[in-house]
Amino acid sequence: MTVRVGVIGAGWIGLEHIRRLTDTVTGAKVTAVTDIDAARAEEAAARVGARVLADGAELIVAEDVDAVLVTSWGPTHAEHVLNAIAAGKPVFCEKPLATTAEDCLRIVEAERAHGRRLVQVGFMRRYDAGYRQLKEVLASGGIGAPLIVHCAHRNPTVPKAYTSRMAAQDTAVHEIDVLRWLLDDEIVSAQVLRPRATTNRFPHLTDPQIMLFETANGVRIDLEVFVNCQYGYDIQCETVGERGLVRLPDPAAVTLRTEGVSGSAVLRDWKDRFADAFDTEFREWIAGIAAGEEPTGPSAWDGYAATVITDAAVQSLESDSEVVTVDMKPRPAFYAGRASTGGVA
Amino acid sequence: MTVRVGVIGAGWIGLEHIRRLTDTVTGAKVTAVTDIDAARAEEAAARVGARVLADGAELIVAEDVDAVLVTSWGPTHAEHVLNAIAAGKPVFCEKPLATTAEDCLRIVEAERAHGRRLVQVGFMRRYDAGYRQLKEVLASGGIGAPLIVHCAHRNPTVPKAYTSRMAAQDTAVHEIDVLRWLLDDEIVSAQVLRPRATTNRFPHLTDPQIMLFETANGVRIDLEVFVNCQYGYDIQCETVGERGLVRLPDPAAVTLRTEGVSGSAVLRDWKDRFADAFDTEFREWIAGIAAGEEPTGPSAWDGYAATVITDAAVQSLESDSEVVTVDMKPRPAFYAGRASTGGVA
Amino acid sequence: MTVRVGVIGAGWIGLEHIRRLTDTVTGAKVTAVTDIDAARAEEAAARVGARVLADGAELIVAEDVDAVLVTSWGPTHAEHVLNAIAAGKPVFCEKPLATTAEDCLRIVEAERAHGRRLVQVGFMRRYDAGYRQLKEVLASGGIGAPLIVHCAHRNPTVPKAYTSRMAAQDTAVHEIDVLRWLLDDEIVSAQVLRPRATTNRFPHLTDPQIMLFETANGVRIDLEVFVNCQYGYDIQCETVGERGLVRLPDPAAVTLRTEGVSGSAVLRDWKDRFADAFDTEFREWIAGIAAGEEPTGPSAWDGYAATVITDAAVQSLESDSEVVTVDMKPRPAFYAGRASTGGVA
Amino acid sequence: MTVRVGVIGAGWIGLEHIRRLTDTVTGAKVTAVTDIDAARAEEAAARVGARVLADGAELIVAEDVDAVLVTSWGPTHAEHVLNAIAAGKPVFCEKPLATTAEDCLRIVEAERAHGRRLVQVGFMRRYDAGYRQLKEVLASGGIGAPLIVHCAHRNPTVPKAYTSRMAAQDTAVHEIDVLRWLLDDEIVSAQVLRPRATTNRFPHLTDPQIMLFETANGVRIDLEVFVNCQYGYDIQCETVGERGLVRLPDPAAVTLRTEGVSGSAVLRDWKDRFADAFDTEFREWIAGIAAGEEPTGPSAWDGYAATVITDAAVQSLESDSEVVTVDMKPRPAFYAGRASTGGVA
Repeated sequence: MTVRVGVIGAGWIGLEHIRRLTDTVTGAKVTAVTDIDAARAEEAAARVGARVLADGAELIVAEDVDAVLVTSWGPTHAEHVLNAIAAGKPVFCEKPLATTAEDCLRIVEAERAHGRRLVQVGFMRRYDAGYRQLKEVLASGGIGAPLIVHCAHRNPTVPKAYTSRMAAQDTAVHEIDVLRWLLDDEIVSAQVLRPRATTNRFPHLTDPQIMLFETANGVRIDLEVFVNCQYGYDIQCETVGERGLVRLPDPAAVTLRTEGVSGSAVLRDWKDRFADAFDTEFREWIAGIAAGEEPTGPSAWDGYAATVITDAAVQSLESDSEVVTVDMKPRPAFYAGRASTGGVA
Repeated sequence: MTVRVGVIGAGWIGLEHIRRLTDTVTGAKVTAVTDIDAARAEEAAARVGARVLADGAELIVAEDVDAVLVTSWGPTHAEHVLNAIAAGKPVFCEKPLATTAEDCLRIVEAERAHGRRLVQVGFMRRYDAGYRQLKEVLASGGIGAPLIVHCAHRNPTVPKAYTSRMAAQDTAVHEIDVLRWLLDDEIVSAQVLRPRATTNRFPHLTDPQIMLFETANGVRIDLEVFVNCQYGYDIQCETVGERGLVRLPDPAAVTLRTEGVSGSAVLRDWKDRFADAFDTEFREWIAGIAAGEEPTGPSAWDGYAATVITDAAVQSLESDSEVVTVDMKPRPAFYAGRASTGGVA
Repeated sequence: MTVRVGVIGAGWIGLEHIRRLTDTVTGAKVTAVTDIDAARAEEAAARVGARVLADGAELIVAEDVDAVLVTSWGPTHAEHVLNAIAAGKPVFCEKPLATTAEDCLRIVEAERAHGRRLVQVGFMRRYDAGYRQLKEVLASGGIGAPLIVHCAHRNPTVPKAYTSRMAAQDTAVHEIDVLRWLLDDEIVSAQVLRPRATTNRFPHLTDPQIMLFETANGVRIDLEVFVNCQYGYDIQCETVGERGLVRLPDPAAVTLRTEGVSGSAVLRDWKDRFADAFDTEFREWIAGIAAGEEPTGPSAWDGYAATVITDAAVQSLESDSEVVTVDMKPRPAFYAGRASTGGVA
Repeated sequence: MTVRVGVIGAGWIGLEHIRRLTDTVTGAKVTAVTDIDAARAEEAAARVGARVLADGAELIVAEDVDAVLVTSWGPTHAEHVLNAIAAGKPVFCEKPLATTAEDCLRIVEAERAHGRRLVQVGFMRRYDAGYRQLKEVLASGGIGAPLIVHCAHRNPTVPKAYTSRMAAQDTAVHEIDVLRWLLDDEIVSAQVLRPRATTNRFPHLTDPQIMLFETANGVRIDLEVFVNCQYGYDIQCETVGERGLVRLPDPAAVTLRTEGVSGSAVLRDWKDRFADAFDTEFREWIAGIAAGEEPTGPSAWDGYAATVITDAAVQSLESDSEVVTVDMKPRPAFYAGRASTGGVA
């Protein structure tokens, strides 16, 4: 059985996923595309033999659409996801699930009312081979209970449109999601420190930032977010437990010894870093749908959690580094067995 | 367009590739299967909705077979490949192309007579990301002309059926192919040394072996083949050039610090080591056929070269470590622009 | 010229340094020893042919003592150092310089009044080859201005007598000193966080702790202090600058591949980690005295600074993680050109 | 007790060791110096307060000389060492012990006749911390019996005076000695291969060379000697055993991430690589003499063995890569318990 996917939003990430569903993931076919820019939709659809539909609402209910992929502008996500739930169709929503905690909760409520998971949020790191190895080690108890996590998220540069809030909302949000999953624990407070700023940034930007999180179990997380580090795209994650530590590997790269240096290339582009994770993410999503199973990836609840935690981080940043308690509702039982998988199982 | 593949040989490697063409590689469909064991063919075919045909000859000419995959017993390869050429169909043949140099040459001649490349041999290392990075560095001139290559090919153990000749024919053959491609150079002599034998082997086996090769350009290659090394599956390759060296990376793995050791897991299974390479190999093969292009992977000529070079290594082993000149015909012009790709290009 | 050293305090660190001055460092001779335990002094002195004196006061003024080494109980340090200054003799004082900021300041004032540096404090990390390489990179501008420093200081275990305050006073104090020197910058605030506690500790102890420091230039330092980490003695330091980062190396150790793991031993004992640094520290101290130069290592001012900064950290720990401003006097001009050397120069 | 050392030969290595015995090693004093260039001897002696003697013969018998250090021109070594034995004084001779196997044997015989070890040869690698760790692992049985050793010895460049023979005599001789010691095994044959030559060499030179050795136990050693590798001074050694392998570490160096590369500096100068080994070598030599013990470092027999093995390598190089059997006498019982120490013990 081929899963017929309708895609809402044909911007670059939409195009990337259309290409992925067409060329890389078996068992899927993009059958319908929509975009607020009709020409863009037309071009994307033509390339893969899909048809163009007028808007998300129409696409979601189309008969030749088994599953919905939302890659449109963030503020429109909630509406499309709610419509998909109403139509009873699996929906994969790129982050954010919604731009406000309230909208996320509306989705959570709608899904609960539906009685079965339909929503998956696009946090791809849970599908990265390195993070999965980390998860395995933690789950095996090999280092004992986790106590501290040290992370860094570095980009070479960001464009002028990137704002200080986006350090939490667009950048740190990946660590927020993957650490909740890794630790099987909830983040309860956030604080953002402002180190000396790099001169290699647009003046409006607070860069780097250090984010401190605490979990329900008392684990302390420090996360350096540095989006103009110049030297490359670099993701670091080290978990310290009671009996040892485990560290995410750097991507495999040849070692070169020339001119007095022994070194390896650092990636420049985050898409190269997580290309395999994206593939695995969609492969598992499509396979689950084909098998008639609920999605096992990041849930609507995870999307909600990420939103309220990034809200807390933004509030701390904008309030002169106060420790901000995360204002999270209690997790419904519905999500208990359903939320923290997508991984090693 | 979906490429319809007929598979000759449903042993474990055949099943592995059937699974790969079905679940992992887009644009392909296994439509026909044959095997000397009819039940085995039946089972493999049923799983993917293919039909069973009586034998290779019938399968090759079947109308619903666009391309042929040969994964049968080595001694039958030549016949199937020749039949595929006769039928003018692309054929992917697992190593060896043929078990004798004469049969390899018959295939080379048949393909030349056909006037267009149809044959690809299953040397997957050219598709490994690490080797491709090595190739890029060498091609860029970053380390100057290559002078020496140090390699190791280690397996944890081998079964009793593994013979001393297989160290060259089944194990070192992968280095032989990938080094010819990496260096863009031909191997002209082979010598096999017998180090002190490990006690962890069946008594009939010469293990480890050190193979020494020389290329037309004078590059010296030393290759340790150690198939009972116990500790893991480990592939090493370091090329030393006039201005520096470049080394194949170990697979990315988390670092663990516990109990006084900082370490990473070494793989146990060669299939894990080259799983991605196999995927890329078939993805590129299928994409080329769909595009109506000649294959760019290892050619019939490469299959012939690998055979005569491993013959020389076996002769050295069995003659008390003499230096044996590789008895290779001159390469036909036909293969000049067609042989050493499948890579970075 | 041989520098004749009198040693006050023949406990284990005193014995260690007596051995070092006798067997490892050229140009020095231990001529006098004193200890509150006369038998201990006797034994130590006998081993190296020194004489035993009644107390520190007597030793400091002894004619056959050119320089004084203070390795007695911490609370007695200030008195001995002040006496040495009064006698106009070079004095090397193991940390702490004094147990209170007031006493440190008295020493600073006495030295200024004397008009020439006599005091060196025993912070040996400035003499570690790895830290010196870090310093060179920072000084060269290779990574631009430093913005953030990530550190970890881990011990396998600590005895029952180790208290939560000692995490700052005895453990973190080494990072505090070496980072002031590395960054050529002053620490202005301290905060101590309490992660989930390890179960492998005595119940009275807060372990691990995360210490956050800010410098006058706005650099943010996070330091994990984990003194029951079980797996080994492990010192990490990574400085992130505007254009790159630089990381302290792990000690060189053979790589072993056995039983599915590729790994290296982690040290167990801090004395092994900094053995070479101790040697260099004393070698440079003795050479300076022999040459009639002022000491270039950590100064009385550095000893004072370390004390007030650890005081701030302790205050934060005991006040529920408040950010505590370091209450440091302005640095006298006297120490400007004299304080931050001992290094790469 | 201070060991009074007389130094024969005040060239750069002589000066280096005079400095070492004066400034770095305790318990030693250079009391006498001689050199064929009187001015050079004068200058060296003046710097350390030693006196100048007319020649080696006079120096060796001088009353204020307890031990002799031979750092003169190679062809004069044998005479000085024989004189020292005749005088019953400990003698440290820089490599080579003698320039011919015959002269080495004369020394061996003289020492045996004397009945007690006096001679130590300057192979410093046995004192390198990394090689000592290798030795410990091998001795512990952690990787089982050794089967193969892979080595590389690379220098950035060599001067014009460096000849092809020196690749064995001056360069590989260090591996030859240290591997005999590491493996506790004897080298029985040598063969030298000529890879494609680098263009970065003087035309008269065969560079790189690959040397193949076999030991009495059947261990196979491959050693790349590449003395114009351009990129740095790089020493590699990997021993493969029945159950695993162990690899010499690279020198500890900070990791730098800048401009898309994560790398560490490679040393340029061999003296930096083995500076600590030289210190330890002389420290142990002096301590042994002071304690009235026989030397435990490389013996006259080791000096003889190194000479006959390098002779075999040179013969192979000059005979078109023949396998040359090492023409070594049986080891006298005298050296059995005395030869392979200087190490982990």
